[in-house]
Amino acid sequence: MNVSPKLCYNMFWKIHSCIMTSVRESGEVGLGTLLDGINGPQDLKSLSLGQLEKLAGEIRELLIHTVSANGGHLAPNLGVVELTLALHRTFNSPNDKFIWDVGHQAYVHKILTGRRRQFSTLRQTGGISGFPKRCESQHDVFGVGHSSTSISSALGVALARDMSGDTYNVIGIIGDGSLTGGQAYEALNHAGHLNINLTVVLNDNEMSIAKNVGAMSEYLAKLRTAPTYSKVKHDIEYLLRRIPAIGESVAKTAERVKDSLKYLLVPGMLFEELGFTYFGPIDGHNIPLILDVLDKTKSIKGPVLIHLLTQKGKGYAPAECNADKFHGVGPFCIDTGEIIKNGGAPSYTQVFGDTLVKLAEQNPDIVAITAAMPEGTGLKKFSARFPERFFDVGIAEQHAVTLAAGMATQGKRPVVAVYSTFLQRGYDQILHDVCLQNLPVIFMLDRAGIVGEDGATHHGVFDYSFLRHIPNMVMMAPKDENELRHMLYTATQLNGPVAIRYPRGSGVGAESKPDFTQLELGKSEELLLGKDLVLLAIGTMAAACCQAAALLAPKGIEAGVVNARFVKPLDGQLIRRLARDKGVIITVEDNVLAGGFGSAVLEYINAQQLNWVKVLRLGLPDKYIEHGPRNYLLSRHGLDPQGIAASAEAFIRQFGVRK
Amino acid sequence: MNVSPKLCYNMFWKIHSCIMTSVRESGEVGLGTLLDGINGPQDLKSLSLGQLEKLAGEIRELLIHTVSANGGHLAPNLGVVELTLALHRTFNSPNDKFIWDVGHQAYVHKILTGRRRQFSTLRQTGGISGFPKRCESQHDVFGVGHSSTSISSALGVALARDMSGDTYNVIGIIGDGSLTGGQAYEALNHAGHLNINLTVVLNDNEMSIAKNVGAMSEYLAKLRTAPTYSKVKHDIEYLLRRIPAIGESVAKTAERVKDSLKYLLVPGMLFEELGFTYFGPIDGHNIPLILDVLDKTKSIKGPVLIHLLTQKGKGYAPAECNADKFHGVGPFCIDTGEIIKNGGAPSYTQVFGDTLVKLAEQNPDIVAITAAMPEGTGLKKFSARFPERFFDVGIAEQHAVTLAAGMATQGKRPVVAVYSTFLQRGYDQILHDVCLQNLPVIFMLDRAGIVGEDGATHHGVFDYSFLRHIPNMVMMAPKDENELRHMLYTATQLNGPVAIRYPRGSGVGAESKPDFTQLELGKSEELLLGKDLVLLAIGTMAAACCQAAALLAPKGIEAGVVNARFVKPLDGQLIRRLARDKGVIITVEDNVLAGGFGSAVLEYINAQQLNWVKVLRLGLPDKYIEHGPRNYLLSRHGLDPQGIAASAEAFIRQFGVRK
Repeated sequence: MNVSPKLCYNMFWKIHSCIMTSVRESGEVGLGTLLDGINGPQDLKSLSLGQLEKLAGEIRELLIHTVSANGGHLAPNLGVVELTLALHRTFNSPNDKFIWDVGHQAYVHKILTGRRRQFSTLRQTGGISGFPKRCESQHDVFGVGHSSTSISSALGVALARDMSGDTYNVIGIIGDGSLTGGQAYEALNHAGHLNINLTVVLNDNEMSIAKNVGAMSEYLAKLRTAPTYSKVKHDIEYLLRRIPAIGESVAKTAERVKDSLKYLLVPGMLFEELGFTYFGPIDGHNIPLILDVLDKTKSIKGPVLIHLLTQKGKGYAPAECNADKFHGVGPFCIDTGEIIKNGGAPSYTQVFGDTLVKLAEQNPDIVAITAAMPEGTGLKKFSARFPERFFDVGIAEQHAVTLAAGMATQGKRPVVAVYSTFLQRGYDQILHDVCLQNLPVIFMLDRAGIVGEDGATHHGVFDYSFLRHIPNMVMMAPKDENELRHMLYTATQLNGPVAIRYPRGSGVGAESKPDFTQLELGKSEELLLGKDLVLLAIGTMAAACCQAAALLAPKGIEAGVVNARFVKPLDGQLIRRLARDKGVIITVEDNVLAGGFGSAVLEYINAQQLNWVKVLRLGLPDKYIEHGPRNYLLSRHGLDPQGIAASAEAFIRQFGVRK
Repeated sequence: MNVSPKLCYNMFWKIHSCIMTSVRESGEVGLGTLLDGINGPQDLKSLSLGQLEKLAGEIRELLIHTVSANGGHLAPNLGVVELTLALHRTFNSPNDKFIWDVGHQAYVHKILTGRRRQFSTLRQTGGISGFPKRCESQHDVFGVGHSSTSISSALGVALARDMSGDTYNVIGIIGDGSLTGGQAYEALNHAGHLNINLTVVLNDNEMSIAKNVGAMSEYLAKLRTAPTYSKVKHDIEYLLRRIPAIGESVAKTAERVKDSLKYLLVPGMLFEELGFTYFGPIDGHNIPLILDVLDKTKSIKGPVLIHLLTQKGKGYAPAECNADKFHGVGPFCIDTGEIIKNGGAPSYTQVFGDTLVKLAEQNPDIVAITAAMPEGTGLKKFSARFPERFFDVGIAEQHAVTLAAGMATQGKRPVVAVYSTFLQRGYDQILHDVCLQNLPVIFMLDRAGIVGEDGATHHGVFDYSFLRHIPNMVMMAPKDENELRHMLYTATQLNGPVAIRYPRGSGVGAESKPDFTQLELGKSEELLLGKDLVLLAIGTMAAACCQAAALLAPKGIEAGVVNARFVKPLDGQLIRRLARDKGVIITVEDNVLAGGFGSAVLEYINAQQLNWVKVLRLGLPDKYIEHGPRNYLLSRHGLDPQGIAASAEAFIRQFGVRK
């Protein structure tokens, strides 16, 4: 049988695997710390296989050690140690281009590309980022943080290469989770059509953040075991060996069948149909195997997809057992795997999750939707309590939004729980599918405002700006976790789209009463009276403003504080009254100033021509905010109590001459 | 051979097709106008096949007649006449739910669901919409206008049905073009996983708007002809018939192979891998065949995909020959197919296309990207002149944006030409892939502002609001088609992301000089001096403002006019000077007021504390704008010269008491 190179290869590696396992087990490795000698990818070239294996172990230790102190994405990085070593051993970065999807698994890449010494500064202020960043290293070809963009950007790089007559390799590395995002498919579809030289490494760990979902995931599972394919192949070869005895016409037919079957029996058919040459599945923790497949596929023309099987959390037992928990973690104890808790109040996420369960017990129409983050968004309890009303759609925010819209047309009350930054991907669907039809979909925007260590790609600091200009949208932000409960309840009582945004982390410890209060639409809450100025705060800025008011009092400035509650509709009555009474309004938000909450207040004041009011808008500047601790970043941008008080004082001294 | 129902069906319909063609050709049809008797889907139930065929002809006549007068989407609707008849004959709308992707092909559905009499008002002010609208009919289950949402929304409806214990049918109808959008794949992936009762009708006309692109499209083409599958199946049956003679062990193996092959040889494998049961391909203009497949698939459990082959423009020769031109057309002459031209100046689209070719001749790094609209965005000439630098990615705006970002990292200057409303789908990619990395990608936003007859889903009235709050973005809008040329040139000279937005239709006939001028960043242009107020206009509102100034002059109001040119960065120097000199600024934009251009001006004035300036913001209200002629809609919202003049006059009378 004229077996294709791929089939041949897939047989070969099984044998190779056995040999190499025994080589490994013989313990042929070097002594001392290899990692100290790795200052760039070139230092990998001379290492023996055994040394690479040893290096993998050292890298794992460094990963566990650093992330246990700094927090970060542990499990994804433990899963790609061998892959990353093999990539940098085979290719020549930065001439060859690696493009990481999502990028939370690029720690090993960073360690190997001259950032080993800085690795202890991971995710720290001024330290290296937890994601690839172009400004950090020439080895970081494309910045990333959100999912499913790598094939698009890698294809862009590859097309640019071809237009410029260059010949370097372009390699996109994408997880099976990211493959549930539609953009990945758009790019596969395009790349397959162009028949361009491009390598996509599918890092299949059967997870996105949580356990993976979707038909594609099931398809990959089938490939993983693939008994059908190998069995059928074997059977057909057996048959074909016997057929020539039957007669010439039969033999000719058999020949034709054989040719067709070669095609039909190649695993990875789905990728092949999309124009990719498929290799796999391959053990993603076996360095010689990976080296071998990378080497062999380098010379293949057209797009190639290499399907690697890896284990999230590999090499650290607590992470292997609980990859979800160790996907992205705070500091933890290495020995026990226990997360070091700050104690304190329950998180907004938790309060949301508990509240939704409670409301859903009373209202059978409530359903919950997540895009691959049941744990992160607090829906785990809901999913256990109401499995038939819970939907994890994979990393597919666009679909999540329109799916909710579809359900809403039939009387359901869908609650889409999503991180603020990821909802950016559903902007058109919110505008075109939900709000245009005024459908009662509730968006719960977790991780809004400054998120901290995950940095620029993850801050949720645009949501007021990208949601409040959409007609029919109601947008709220609670001052504390208890108000979050009432807002969610209120949202279920409204008959149109509602967005509620709240930050990462613990609430303020507000006492939570068992009953729910329906908040009046567009009605704010006066927290403190003060005759000199009003701090008009939205969301969790309210607490900071109360503290700022306390700081201003000793200076003889009486600051009132209003919890705005609504970004849309605004409390016009309040603004008119404030305008009449006070003359000085200071808006405070953890969102970019452009188009944000303060901008909405200006628009209202302008529409009402209340021109005499002096308004100062505090918020985030027109630039991307780097990573660092949340409180540090808030303080750096003047949004902590001290900063707010200082700005208020300066403003009132300049403009606050009062009646 | 134990043939599967599907294989059996696919054989059956070929025979059926022959029979029905001869029935049709025998001319067994009724007399008189059948369409007059169709006031709802129920009226189709009693018609004979021959009558349905006749009705199809009558509907085609009505379509051609109406669209030739009103403009609209002709070719897509001519392609789905038989399909729509068969759907409404088989199912019971509105109990059963039809969900149309994009929706521009729902005219026949409208005609059959009680809107035949209003059909002459198609796309007219106050008339029926060119797209499904929930408020228009209970048969319009889900509103639509953008692509690739139907499987998501249909799945949402189907899930709601199951949760409520209902049993109606849910049918999504999607074109092969829409299948290039990632959201469609996200939804297929989810539906296949859920194994839910859902029918997806794939209306495969080998086109999106232009000729379809992508690996999926090639895959569908393979299914269309499918010689491999049928040939191989035939061959294998032949072989297997001979094998039992060889011996028992061989026969047993053969049996196993046979079982596997049944699976492997089913066409539509890719859809099958995603969990759908595939039927097809089927002649989409053969009513009895479609009726038959719909009837048979109704009772199948789990998701079904029916692959219909249709011809865009079917039954009207000019549209059959030129489906691209007749996709969406203005009024035309039925006899000749000639579009009735308004004459006038070249369109903005044309000027953009010509300019880009000229700039690309000088700059080899310029590349152009479209999401399935080479004609609509004016890139046809570029694609002919520089085929190797032109990329049509399919209906995949997300991928288009990130692809451009990837190219830009390697020194290319990508120009993404896209309708304003469709760029909404790339919001996250613009923010996360382009602007965060400050990459020099140029976005050309055609059809910005009010687009007219396509209505709420197509107006490009949010772009200032969703783009200007993104850090690093430069945003311009030209006052006329000549300035568009200079802006595009200027964009190629800047080293970061730039968006330029311009309206649908003809320019103002501005004289175009052959050379290019680099505009100063953030610098506006004073068009008219006037001491009483300044109309600060952005984009094509400048011309309207000049006319408004002329209307104000006889009333003793001297209005200056400034062409703002930049939404971001704003011309702060000008605003400060205007503030100093005039005291009254009226901003004019064809964008929603929330977060738009005027809002940016307010923010600047606030940041500079120029509080004494009186500002009036003219623009679009916080609601979705219906369909109607562009000029009518502008006028209705006070953005024509008369409206601007009236608003200005009222404002100046109230606030314009001057030094």
